[in-house]
Amino acid sequence: MTQHPRFAVILSGCGVFDGSEIHEAVLTLLAIDRLGGRYRCYAPDRPQMHVVNHLSGQVAQGESRNVLVESARIARGQIADLATFDPAEADALILPGGFGAAKNLSSFATEGAACTVDPGVERAVRAMVAAGKPVGALCIAPAVLARILGDGVELTIGDDPATAAAIEAAGARHRVAGRAEVVVDRARKLATSPCYMLSSPIATIADGAENTVRALIELIGS
Amino acid sequence: MTQHPRFAVILSGCGVFDGSEIHEAVLTLLAIDRLGGRYRCYAPDRPQMHVVNHLSGQVAQGESRNVLVESARIARGQIADLATFDPAEADALILPGGFGAAKNLSSFATEGAACTVDPGVERAVRAMVAAGKPVGALCIAPAVLARILGDGVELTIGDDPATAAAIEAAGARHRVAGRAEVVVDRARKLATSPCYMLSSPIATIADGAENTVRALIELIGS
Repeated sequence: MTQHPRFAVILSGCGVFDGSEIHEAVLTLLAIDRLGGRYRCYAPDRPQMHVVNHLSGQVAQGESRNVLVESARIARGQIADLATFDPAEADALILPGGFGAAKNLSSFATEGAACTVDPGVERAVRAMVAAGKPVGALCIAPAVLARILGDGVELTIGDDPATAAAIEAAGARHRVAGRAEVVVDRARKLATSPCYMLSSPIATIADGAENTVRALIELIGS
Repeated sequence: MTQHPRFAVILSGCGVFDGSEIHEAVLTLLAIDRLGGRYRCYAPDRPQMHVVNHLSGQVAQGESRNVLVESARIARGQIADLATFDPAEADALILPGGFGAAKNLSSFATEGAACTVDPGVERAVRAMVAAGKPVGALCIAPAVLARILGDGVELTIGDDPATAAAIEAAGARHRVAGRAEVVVDRARKLATSPCYMLSSPIATIADGAENTVRALIELIGS
């Protein structure tokens, strides 16, 4: 096994309602560091679907933000355009959740199983799978993997029936999972966990992120 | 000791260069939860000093954001206006770092020892100290406590000589501290730790936040 596994982390903005879920993203970086890995953050250089005022929950009319620029807040400026991602430089790929995965990395929030996926995200996921390298996703982000990979891949988004049905309509097989549990598709080297798709305290989100990162490390080179 | 100590967390925006340092804020919430506490987030309802593009590091000219609205991203919408803070409802108070502490909670970034402090922040800190309840701060946020309290309080911002000098000019005594170390002023019930004032991996930031929260819990009722 790689001594310091190299993780690529794909962010989708900065804030649960219009970008990356911040706790999931930060706790993914923490888990990678605690488990001896290294990470590099990436995000697509494109406008967000919209901006949500996280105090009121309402869409901020007339406001526009960029996914890469806002993701840089979580990454403390240390982030690269996803278009520059080279799968040779990563041992594993992971997508934290938040509505950004369903609004900016894909159109799953509005189009469900028939959604489009950001070309950079699709290219990165396909390249990792083609290279036999593991891919992880948290919260709603497994829906993006379902749309890209289809073909009966096993995933979880927790236990929400409508979301599970949309994932199955996209060609994946949904497995119900509880808090901090990880569903592993060993054949396709995928690891997914519900995180905030299930109402949870933040320590449970940390456990879910750490369990997923540990599963990915076990899948590297398996 | 209180079975589930209640923490008030004061945020200052969302992003290290113009708001709360996101890792420090999230890892403070994680530490509180892991150590059996409960938290409620607060932020002042006021414009940020400015908006910084975290990808380029440059000020985004003509853009304006609100401290409370942006802080709500870190709090997943569960946040209150600092003006409503009631010290009777908290056992301890903590300020994570990031430039927001020195740009939005105070003017320390531009005015140093002679800075002004947001009235809601000053009121909250003074009320907690008057009630004999502990107050913590991470990274650059101890500078805000130095300005409010003065009077020889013992604090750390790590080991930066210029910042330490400004803190001493504000009337505090600076103590050099290493990564994840906590300086405790037992008489005044203050606990501070350098976090990202010292270049550190994210797991060390988690340790610094947890050590600070643990020190605050020990100070409750002491």
